[in-house]
Amino acid sequence: MDVGVWLIGARGSVATTVVTGAAALRAGLAAPIGCVTEAPDFADAGLPPLDRLVFGGHDISSTPLPKKAEELSRAGVIPAPLAELVRQDLEAADAEIRSGIAADADTWSDAAGRPGMAGDTWTRPRDTSVAEGQGAMAQALIRDLTEFRERRGLARVVVIHVASTEPPAVPHPAHHSLEALTTALDRPGRVLPPSSLYAFAALSAGCPYIDFTPSTGVSLPALDELARARGVPYAGRDAKTGETLVKTALAPMFADRALAVRSWSGTNLLGGGDGATLADPASGESKRISKERALPGILGHSVEGRTHIDHVPHLGDWKTAWDHITFEGFLGVRMSLQFTWQGCDSALAAPLVLDLARLLARAHERGHAGAVKELGFFFKDPIALDEHRLQTQYDLLRAWAGELA
Amino acid sequence: MDVGVWLIGARGSVATTVVTGAAALRAGLAAPIGCVTEAPDFADAGLPPLDRLVFGGHDISSTPLPKKAEELSRAGVIPAPLAELVRQDLEAADAEIRSGIAADADTWSDAAGRPGMAGDTWTRPRDTSVAEGQGAMAQALIRDLTEFRERRGLARVVVIHVASTEPPAVPHPAHHSLEALTTALDRPGRVLPPSSLYAFAALSAGCPYIDFTPSTGVSLPALDELARARGVPYAGRDAKTGETLVKTALAPMFADRALAVRSWSGTNLLGGGDGATLADPASGESKRISKERALPGILGHSVEGRTHIDHVPHLGDWKTAWDHITFEGFLGVRMSLQFTWQGCDSALAAPLVLDLARLLARAHERGHAGAVKELGFFFKDPIALDEHRLQTQYDLLRAWAGELA
Amino acid sequence: MDVGVWLIGARGSVATTVVTGAAALRAGLAAPIGCVTEAPDFADAGLPPLDRLVFGGHDISSTPLPKKAEELSRAGVIPAPLAELVRQDLEAADAEIRSGIAADADTWSDAAGRPGMAGDTWTRPRDTSVAEGQGAMAQALIRDLTEFRERRGLARVVVIHVASTEPPAVPHPAHHSLEALTTALDRPGRVLPPSSLYAFAALSAGCPYIDFTPSTGVSLPALDELARARGVPYAGRDAKTGETLVKTALAPMFADRALAVRSWSGTNLLGGGDGATLADPASGESKRISKERALPGILGHSVEGRTHIDHVPHLGDWKTAWDHITFEGFLGVRMSLQFTWQGCDSALAAPLVLDLARLLARAHERGHAGAVKELGFFFKDPIALDEHRLQTQYDLLRAWAGELA
Amino acid sequence: MDVGVWLIGARGSVATTVVTGAAALRAGLAAPIGCVTEAPDFADAGLPPLDRLVFGGHDISSTPLPKKAEELSRAGVIPAPLAELVRQDLEAADAEIRSGIAADADTWSDAAGRPGMAGDTWTRPRDTSVAEGQGAMAQALIRDLTEFRERRGLARVVVIHVASTEPPAVPHPAHHSLEALTTALDRPGRVLPPSSLYAFAALSAGCPYIDFTPSTGVSLPALDELARARGVPYAGRDAKTGETLVKTALAPMFADRALAVRSWSGTNLLGGGDGATLADPASGESKRISKERALPGILGHSVEGRTHIDHVPHLGDWKTAWDHITFEGFLGVRMSLQFTWQGCDSALAAPLVLDLARLLARAHERGHAGAVKELGFFFKDPIALDEHRLQTQYDLLRAWAGELA
Repeated sequence: MDVGVWLIGARGSVATTVVTGAAALRAGLAAPIGCVTEAPDFADAGLPPLDRLVFGGHDISSTPLPKKAEELSRAGVIPAPLAELVRQDLEAADAEIRSGIAADADTWSDAAGRPGMAGDTWTRPRDTSVAEGQGAMAQALIRDLTEFRERRGLARVVVIHVASTEPPAVPHPAHHSLEALTTALDRPGRVLPPSSLYAFAALSAGCPYIDFTPSTGVSLPALDELARARGVPYAGRDAKTGETLVKTALAPMFADRALAVRSWSGTNLLGGGDGATLADPASGESKRISKERALPGILGHSVEGRTHIDHVPHLGDWKTAWDHITFEGFLGVRMSLQFTWQGCDSALAAPLVLDLARLLARAHERGHAGAVKELGFFFKDPIALDEHRLQTQYDLLRAWAGELA
Repeated sequence: MDVGVWLIGARGSVATTVVTGAAALRAGLAAPIGCVTEAPDFADAGLPPLDRLVFGGHDISSTPLPKKAEELSRAGVIPAPLAELVRQDLEAADAEIRSGIAADADTWSDAAGRPGMAGDTWTRPRDTSVAEGQGAMAQALIRDLTEFRERRGLARVVVIHVASTEPPAVPHPAHHSLEALTTALDRPGRVLPPSSLYAFAALSAGCPYIDFTPSTGVSLPALDELARARGVPYAGRDAKTGETLVKTALAPMFADRALAVRSWSGTNLLGGGDGATLADPASGESKRISKERALPGILGHSVEGRTHIDHVPHLGDWKTAWDHITFEGFLGVRMSLQFTWQGCDSALAAPLVLDLARLLARAHERGHAGAVKELGFFFKDPIALDEHRLQTQYDLLRAWAGELA
Repeated sequence: MDVGVWLIGARGSVATTVVTGAAALRAGLAAPIGCVTEAPDFADAGLPPLDRLVFGGHDISSTPLPKKAEELSRAGVIPAPLAELVRQDLEAADAEIRSGIAADADTWSDAAGRPGMAGDTWTRPRDTSVAEGQGAMAQALIRDLTEFRERRGLARVVVIHVASTEPPAVPHPAHHSLEALTTALDRPGRVLPPSSLYAFAALSAGCPYIDFTPSTGVSLPALDELARARGVPYAGRDAKTGETLVKTALAPMFADRALAVRSWSGTNLLGGGDGATLADPASGESKRISKERALPGILGHSVEGRTHIDHVPHLGDWKTAWDHITFEGFLGVRMSLQFTWQGCDSALAAPLVLDLARLLARAHERGHAGAVKELGFFFKDPIALDEHRLQTQYDLLRAWAGELA
Repeated sequence: MDVGVWLIGARGSVATTVVTGAAALRAGLAAPIGCVTEAPDFADAGLPPLDRLVFGGHDISSTPLPKKAEELSRAGVIPAPLAELVRQDLEAADAEIRSGIAADADTWSDAAGRPGMAGDTWTRPRDTSVAEGQGAMAQALIRDLTEFRERRGLARVVVIHVASTEPPAVPHPAHHSLEALTTALDRPGRVLPPSSLYAFAALSAGCPYIDFTPSTGVSLPALDELARARGVPYAGRDAKTGETLVKTALAPMFADRALAVRSWSGTNLLGGGDGATLADPASGESKRISKERALPGILGHSVEGRTHIDHVPHLGDWKTAWDHITFEGFLGVRMSLQFTWQGCDSALAAPLVLDLARLLARAHERGHAGAVKELGFFFKDPIALDEHRLQTQYDLLRAWAGELA
C-alpha cells in the first residue's frame, strides 16, 4: 500500500526538490545520494519503499510545482533535464496541493485567485477564519488530509512542515493541556501559530507529524498529549543541514580530547526565501536558539561567541557558513579551527524529508506514539533527546532501525 | 609504586613539553587540558596517577632539557614562568637521558662530547656499532632501560618513540619471524631501522612500547611475536593531533548522511624540526601514507585529492592545515567544506604521551600482551584496528577503560 | 629639537605599544617593521627622527605604563624581554600622563585616587566640570599641552586620539561654526563629546591633531575652522589596520577587472578592550559606518552583505576578520573570494601612530593648515579624501612626501 | 573593417567561452562583465568594437564548437539558453578552425578522421612534418592565417595561444637569433615547441601574437627580432586569472605598510583539462615558475613557502586556490592572512582574450612593434615589464590607452 507525504509548504524549494527527487529516483534517473535510509543499515527496517510515496500538501503560493522546478533548474539545484523528465509527477503532486493558512494573518491564503492555478479543490471557498475560532480552520485541514488518504487509498499520511520559519510562539495557557486547548480552539481568537495548528490537525487526523523547521509546531505539551492519546508518533525539530551538522560532528572531538573550547563564533550567509525570513529578527531568533542548543550540550559548558544569520540574496539557493573556534590545549596554549561550509539548502534538506517520512511511517505502523527521540540525528534541537553528538545520534538511530525490523 | 616513561627523542620539543607539563600538573601550576585520561570516564580504570610518572630517555641531542624548555617558552609553547618553576624536574629528567642511536648512521650519537653535557652515564663509551651486529647495540639499550627501572624502583617502564620520523623501512627477510630476527641481529649489518631497534630493546626488557610517530618501530611481525612471547603490550602508530584528527571527526558525518565525498585535498604547513624532517620526500612519504589511511576506511571508497606536507620554518612550533572537500548531495548537486586547523604541535602531542603511558602501563599491569587495538583513538594508523571513526574509537577506548577497572 | 607625541588614551594597549616600540627602536632592540615612514620613499621628507619623539598624554586609567607593558608582554604583544629593557622610557612617559575626561560623564576621571598613582601633577585637583561649561575643561587640557611643550623644550606637540571609540556624537548647532562653538563652550552643559573637546584643546594650543579612531574628534566644521584659523594641520579618521586594509587592497582588483561584486559580508572577532567597546551597539555603529565607507567608494555601487563586530574576550589582543565576497564574471558566472585576517591590534596600530606623528609634525613645520588629505592612506574614512584604493592612496602619500622635502 | 581573432586551441573551454560570449554580447544577451576594455577608461582608445571581431583558429580536437558549448552549459560555465541562442555564430567560427600541430608529436593532428568533423579545409592533407623541417609546417600555418584574413576581408588578425600548457622548452642555439632560426627551421628536426612555431607563423604572417599561457610561445630572442623586423606587436605571458591576480593585489599592501612577509604558501586545485595538464610535473613546472615570479618582484625579497598545483577532476571547470601568508608586524609579532579563491577558469579567461585582442589590434594599427609591456596588467609573468603590482599595472595600461586615442 502507498504512503502519503503531506508537505506544509508544498510549493517551496524544499518540497519541490523532494517531489522532483523522489520521481527521479523512482525513474532511475538519479542515485539516492543523501538518503540516509538507503544505507545497508536500514535495509531490513521494513520502511516503505521510496517509490511508494505519494505527495500532496498545503501552501499559500500559487506557483505550480512544474514552474517552481524550472526555477530551481535554472538555479542549479535540480539538474537541467530532470524537471522536464518528471513533469508528470510534478503535475500529479501539484493537483494534491490545497490552500494553506496565511503566515501573517489568521485566515486562508487567497492563492486560489492567482493565475496559473487550477482545480476546484484548491479554489473551494475557505470560509472559516480565526474570527470564529481556529477549531473550524483545523477541521478544514483535517478534511484535506483524510480526503487525500481516502482518495489515494493510502496506508497512512505523514505530515511534514517545511514552510518558512515563524517567530517564537506567543505563550498561551491553553498550550499546556489538551483539554484547555480543545476548549480554546472553539472560541474566536488566535491560540496556536500556523505550524501548531497544522500539527493539531495532523495528529487529530491520525497522521504522524514532523517539525522540519524551528517553528513551534508540535512542541507544545497539549499536542504531545494529543499524539499519545491518538497513538500517533511525531518528531522534530529543525533539520540540521549545514553549520549545526558540522558543529555536532566536530564538537565531540574537542570533548573527547579534553581540549577546552573557549569560543565558537558563526556567520551564516543565506540567499533565497529562507534567508529573507531568517534575516527578520523575530524568525531569526527561533533559528538562533535552535542552533545554539547543541554546543553546551556536547561540551558541558557554555562558550563565548555569537551566531549570525545574514540574508545575502545573491547567494540564491546556496548558503555559506563560516565558523571560528578557539580552544586551549596543554598548558593553556591557544589554538583555533575554522571551517567554511558551502551547501545548497534544498538539496541538503530534501533527502532528509524522504528519510523522515519513511521512518515515521514505519514507526506509526509499528505502533509508536508520541515523540520519537531516536530521530534526533536529523535535528538541530531534537525533541525528547538530550544527545547532540552526531555519531552517537546515528548509533541510536541505527539501533532503533534494528528494532523496527 | 612509580611508573617510568622512557622517551626516545627525550630532548625534543614533544618530550620537553611532556616533562614540563607533568611537573606543572603535579605542582598544581596547570590544569590537565588535553589529557584524555583525566576525564571522568577513566576515573576508575586504575591508571597510575600523573604524579607517579618518572621520566628518562634516549636522544642524540646534547641540549639539556632546561635549555630546551626555555626555547619553547620563548616560542610560546610553554607559558613564560613555567620553565623556570619546574627547572628541578627538568634537570632530574635530563639526568636520566642516555645517548641514542644516530638516525643516519648505524652507530651512536656522539652527543656526549658536546658542551653542556654532564653525567658519566651519558658519556660512557658506546663501543658497539652495526659493524658487529645490531644485537650488541640492542643490549646497550636494554641495559639503559633495566638500570633506569631498578635505580628508580619503578613498577614498570613504558617506552614511547617521539623522535623524528624515519623513511619507510627497507624490507628484510628477518622482519617476519622472531627467530630469523634474533639470528640476523647477531650478524654484522643493518637489519632494523633505529625505531625498530628501540622497540626490540624495549620489548626484550619487558617494557610496553608505543609508536607515537609513523616510523616503522614495533610494526613488524617479528616484534609482534616478541611482544606476545614476553607478555608485553604495545600500541601505535602515529598520534593524530591535527589534520587527521579533524578528518576522522568529519568524514563519518558524510558517511552517515550518505553524502558522496568526491575529493579531499590537504595542505599541511609545518615549522620546526618536524617540518624539516617531513619535507624530506622519504620521511614525508611515511607520514603521507599514514595520513591517507583513514579516509577510504571511513568512506568505503577512495576519493580524489592529494595531501601535501610543506616545511615553513617561520611557523616555528605551530602548524596549519587546510583541507578542502568536495561532495555531492541530492541529485548530484556539488557542495564543499573547507577547514583550517592552526595548532601547536608539541602542545597537541604532549598530553597524549601522558595518556598513552598511563593506559599502556595499566594494560601491562593487567596482563595484556601484544597489540592493544583499543588505543586506536590516539593514532592515525591504528595497529590491529580497522576503525577510523573518531567517536567510535572513543567509545571503544571508554569501554576498554571500564574493563581495566 | 625634539617633537612631542601626546596620546589621548596614553595608558591603553596601543599607546603602551607605541612608547615601548619607540624606545626599542631607539635602543636598536627592534627593526622598524610596520613603520611606513622608514621606507626609502620617505628618507628625504625631513621627518623628525624616531629617536627625537617624546611621549606624554591623557588617560582615565591609573595603571602605570610599565605594568601595562608587562601585561602586553604576557599576552605576546610585546616580546618578553623588551618591557623590562625599556622600563626607564616607560616610566619617563608615564610621568607625563595627566588625568583625562571620563568617557561617560562630563567630569574628570578620578584615577588619581587609585593605588599605583604617583606624581603631583596627576593628582592636581581638576575642579572644573561640565556644570560650569566645557570651555573651562578645555583650558585645563590646553594647560597640560603647553606645559608639556615648554617643560620639555619641544619644537611642537602632535596630539593623537587612541582612546576607546565613542558612540556617534549628538548633533549640536554649535558644531557648525567656530563662533557658535566658542560661545556654547562658555555655558554650562555638554556641547562636545570628549574626543572633540580634546581636539578643540589641541588646536587651540597650536598642536596638530589626529583622529586615530572613529570617534567624532576633529571632524566638525567648527573645528576645521579653528584649525585653519590657528594654522594647524589635522588628519583622520579611524586607522585601517585589518579588515578594511585588506578590503581597500582587494576591491580595486574587482573594479579594474570589471568583475561585478554582488555581496561583501564581514565578521570581525575582537578580544580586548576594543572588542568590548565595539560590541556596544552605539560605539560599534561608529565603527561600522566607518568600515562600510570604502566599498561603494571603490566599486561605484553598493553591494549586499553586512559587517559584524563581535566581542570574543578569549582572543585577547588579537582580532580575526573573515570576509566573504561573491561576484559575477563573464556571462554572469558566480564566483567567490574569502579571506581570514588574524592580527594583533596594538602591533598593527602602533607603528602607524609613529608614522602619523612624524608626518603631521613635518606638515606643521612646513606650514600646512587644516585637513591633510594626503594621509588618507592610513585611514578607513579619510577626512577630505574621496579615494579609498590603498595603492592609489599610497601613491598620493609618496608624492606628498616628496613635496615635504 | 572587421578584425580577426585566431585562437590556438580554438575548440578548448576558453576559446568556446570566448566565441559564445562575444556572440552573446553582440546580440545583447549578456552584459560585458569582466571585460576590462569596456570600462570608460578605454572608451576613446579607438579599439575595434566587440561586434567587429571574427573568430577562427587551430586545434587538434574534432569536437565542434556547438557541442563543446553544450558541455560547458551543462557544467554551468555558459548560462543554459545561451549556447543554443548563439549556435549560428558557433558554427560560423567552427568552420574557420583548421587542424593544428599535435602537442606530443612533431606532426599534424589527425582530428580530421574523427567523427563529427566536416569541411574540406580541415580535412585537407597536412603532408608536412618535422621530418622535412618545421619551416614547411610553419608555411602551412601561415597559409591558414592569410587565407582567413583575405577570405573574410579583415583589417588584421590577432593570434592568441590558449592551448594546453607545454613543458619548458628545450634550449636550442637557434632560439637566439632570427637568422639562426630561419636556417634551422629549414632542416629536419624539432627546433621550436608548438607554441613557438605558432608564434613564428603569426609574426611571419604579420599578425600580432599573444601568449595567453606559460608556454614558451613568442618569448625567444629570435622571435622578438622577427616581431620588430615585421613591425608586429606581441604580448604575454600567462594570463592572471586567479591566485596570482589576488596575490598581486595583496602583496603591495604588505610592502606599502612595511609589514615583513615571511612565508606565502599556495595550493591550487584545478579540474578540467588544464588541471590534468598542469598536474604533469613538466607542464606544472612552467606554471609554477610563472606563478612564483610576482612575489619577490613586489616584496623585494624571497619568502618561504611553496606553490602546489593539484588536479581534482571533480572540480570540473572550477578552480580553488588557498593561499596562506605569514608576516611580522611591529616588534616582530606574527600574524597571518589566508584567502580562498573559487573561480571558473574559462569565465575568468575569456573576457581577457577579448580585451587583449582589441588592445593588440589597436596597437598594431598604431604601428607598435615588438613587446607591449603596457599589457602586463593581464599577465602573471609580463614580457618586458618588471612591475607586478596590479594597481600600478592598471595605471600603466590606462595611461597607454590614453596614448592610443
